[in-house]
Amino acid sequence: MSETESLKKRISELESEVEKLRAGHEKSVVRQKITEMSSEVVDSNPYSRLMALKGMGIVDNYEEIRNHCVAIVGIGGVGSVTAEMLTRCGIGKLLLFDYDKVELANMNRLFFQPHQSGLSKVDAAEKTLSGINPDVCFECHNYNITTVDNFQHFMDRLHKGGMIEGKKVDLVLSCVDNFEARMAINTACNELRQNWIESGVSENAVSGHIQFVTPGESACFACAPPLIVATQTDEKTLKRDGVCAASLPTTMAVVAGLLVQNALKYLLKFGKVSDYVGYNALLDFFPTMSMKPNSDCTDSFCRGNQKYFAENVRTTQIEEEQVQKQEISTENEWGIELVSDSAGAVDSEDRHVTQGIVKAYTVEKSHEDTGNSVGDTSDVSLEELINQMKNV
Amino acid sequence: MSETESLKKRISELESEVEKLRAGHEKSVVRQKITEMSSEVVDSNPYSRLMALKGMGIVDNYEEIRNHCVAIVGIGGVGSVTAEMLTRCGIGKLLLFDYDKVELANMNRLFFQPHQSGLSKVDAAEKTLSGINPDVCFECHNYNITTVDNFQHFMDRLHKGGMIEGKKVDLVLSCVDNFEARMAINTACNELRQNWIESGVSENAVSGHIQFVTPGESACFACAPPLIVATQTDEKTLKRDGVCAASLPTTMAVVAGLLVQNALKYLLKFGKVSDYVGYNALLDFFPTMSMKPNSDCTDSFCRGNQKYFAENVRTTQIEEEQVQKQEISTENEWGIELVSDSAGAVDSEDRHVTQGIVKAYTVEKSHEDTGNSVGDTSDVSLEELINQMKNV
Repeated sequence: MSETESLKKRISELESEVEKLRAGHEKSVVRQKITEMSSEVVDSNPYSRLMALKGMGIVDNYEEIRNHCVAIVGIGGVGSVTAEMLTRCGIGKLLLFDYDKVELANMNRLFFQPHQSGLSKVDAAEKTLSGINPDVCFECHNYNITTVDNFQHFMDRLHKGGMIEGKKVDLVLSCVDNFEARMAINTACNELRQNWIESGVSENAVSGHIQFVTPGESACFACAPPLIVATQTDEKTLKRDGVCAASLPTTMAVVAGLLVQNALKYLLKFGKVSDYVGYNALLDFFPTMSMKPNSDCTDSFCRGNQKYFAENVRTTQIEEEQVQKQEISTENEWGIELVSDSAGAVDSEDRHVTQGIVKAYTVEKSHEDTGNSVGDTSDVSLEELINQMKNV
Repeated sequence: MSETESLKKRISELESEVEKLRAGHEKSVVRQKITEMSSEVVDSNPYSRLMALKGMGIVDNYEEIRNHCVAIVGIGGVGSVTAEMLTRCGIGKLLLFDYDKVELANMNRLFFQPHQSGLSKVDAAEKTLSGINPDVCFECHNYNITTVDNFQHFMDRLHKGGMIEGKKVDLVLSCVDNFEARMAINTACNELRQNWIESGVSENAVSGHIQFVTPGESACFACAPPLIVATQTDEKTLKRDGVCAASLPTTMAVVAGLLVQNALKYLLKFGKVSDYVGYNALLDFFPTMSMKPNSDCTDSFCRGNQKYFAENVRTTQIEEEQVQKQEISTENEWGIELVSDSAGAVDSEDRHVTQGIVKAYTVEKSHEDTGNSVGDTSDVSLEELINQMKNV
């Protein structure tokens, strides 16, 4: 064989090798972008089961989900599943914030896979999610929102990074695992008068909660911190001390499910958005409650929002709620069970925390009790609470 | 450039292309098998957060999860997430049963990805899951359990396909979407006196439930069919008629989370295994209840199991429950909220279905009411139920 022939043979071998490798890369089906959401019932339509919510009388306007933008802060055990649910639901845009890397130690929770170890959580998430649904627009920020510079940028993106650049996001979901980050989200949302939903799971992995915050209307994180947050430490602090917080994919998926379900109800205006839902996994007990803001809140934006709410929002909202209740009560044909709004919930005006909820810690009162903050049961022991419940 | 030079240049280009493609194929981290579960707090340990359940005082014996085998029937929206949770939790062995293929129309739920379209659900699931956790042993059956031959094989595998070949599985989880398949699982489990947990989501996507069945002790599917199952039709039947059941990844993840959480509590003996938990997504309402078996059940194995239970099991179980209650009440140091066992639950001896639950249909009574089956409230209107609740 001449040198030329031998070189040509080598080229031909390499070309066929490249072809083979490329074929392996090409996934049998790649999900193409879809211009318009359709209700058509065919195997190839990824939106048929969602658009069916219209036919079932649950949501009037499912396709409007494409006009909404949600910011998710924390892409860990709860946040990653939250992002996946919203992606599969066809949300318009997601802003993802996290500064952590994927590790094998995360594999006991859903979403991330071993081959993503070492990648930043936001980049790994975007890659997987855009393969699942390329119709969603992603904006990722691989930084810690609690440093001064990053906080300003974070707040700017909540304010201007919405569906149309310059408009604010529609909802912020907090999926962080530490007190400082929750406080940063709270501060930003108070200043921007931005609705958000806080979520959390306990260090022992068997309880969790979601809490909807409407600045001015409901208690903010500085008025009364979220309940069932075992300590103010995060995973990294614990790990440094050789202690390790427990976590379960079950608890995190339940919390993410409740979080996104309430986000969908809020964005698409169906059902009732809950103020607070707790989850006690040992007993399958789900406490609910409402909390009014504290007129002595240390956050001045919160106090300002309370005044704004009192002056502008209350009347409109009462009217809206009445309309919504009427709408819900006409849905019986689908066999949906309805209960009174007050079932299981105790308004904070009763000045007692709902039975079964334990407060993480008590907020110090700078002035005399105004009657707006949660209080009164902070000194009651667990045993006494249990006894009280037995007598109900 | 001479011909030889140009050929050599082409070879060099192709070689670097091959190298690049090969590097893309090789995943940065492959999760290796782990011989023994460790509590060590390092980034590379996928079990650290699970073993921490021991340190937190929740589970005494987490590593025993490796000695357990669970059968999952139906690898759809609930079953696939169920399988992923148990895999990430490090279950010993999973038996997966399904006969469906992955379609783009499934992409509104978690787990399957577009590139898996066309593959059988069990094969696609096994491939993903063994990448996530190669310590789990998988046994897949790509068939419909309701045909005569397959049913025999299905029952045989529940009976002999456990952790050690020849021993039975520890638990069966029903994640199917139709009445016929639920009935087949019920028949098999009654005959084998096999504990199982039924799960379901409604056609309108906004409610679901799990129901734990202990043959002889609690109502079987033939005694009283699961509640909140909107119709007896499955997705395929609906699709044929041009109708499409709605589904949401949120509702399915909440149901899968509750299902696997209760499976873990049952297998690892912690907390309280619920008899029934409902989920009403529109209101975040979670009805619970218990149902005693029907002594006139049409399934003769169920009637036999009831006799067996009355003679052998009842006394032992009461003793065990007392021990378990004592154990739970010593866990206060972790800030777990406890409530009385009866909170939110109504025993079927009260002969009323728990408030907020709507029965799918009423079981015909062949004899006079023996007082063991559910009944009495079937004619009460939704309005009357709501009024009853307001007066509670």
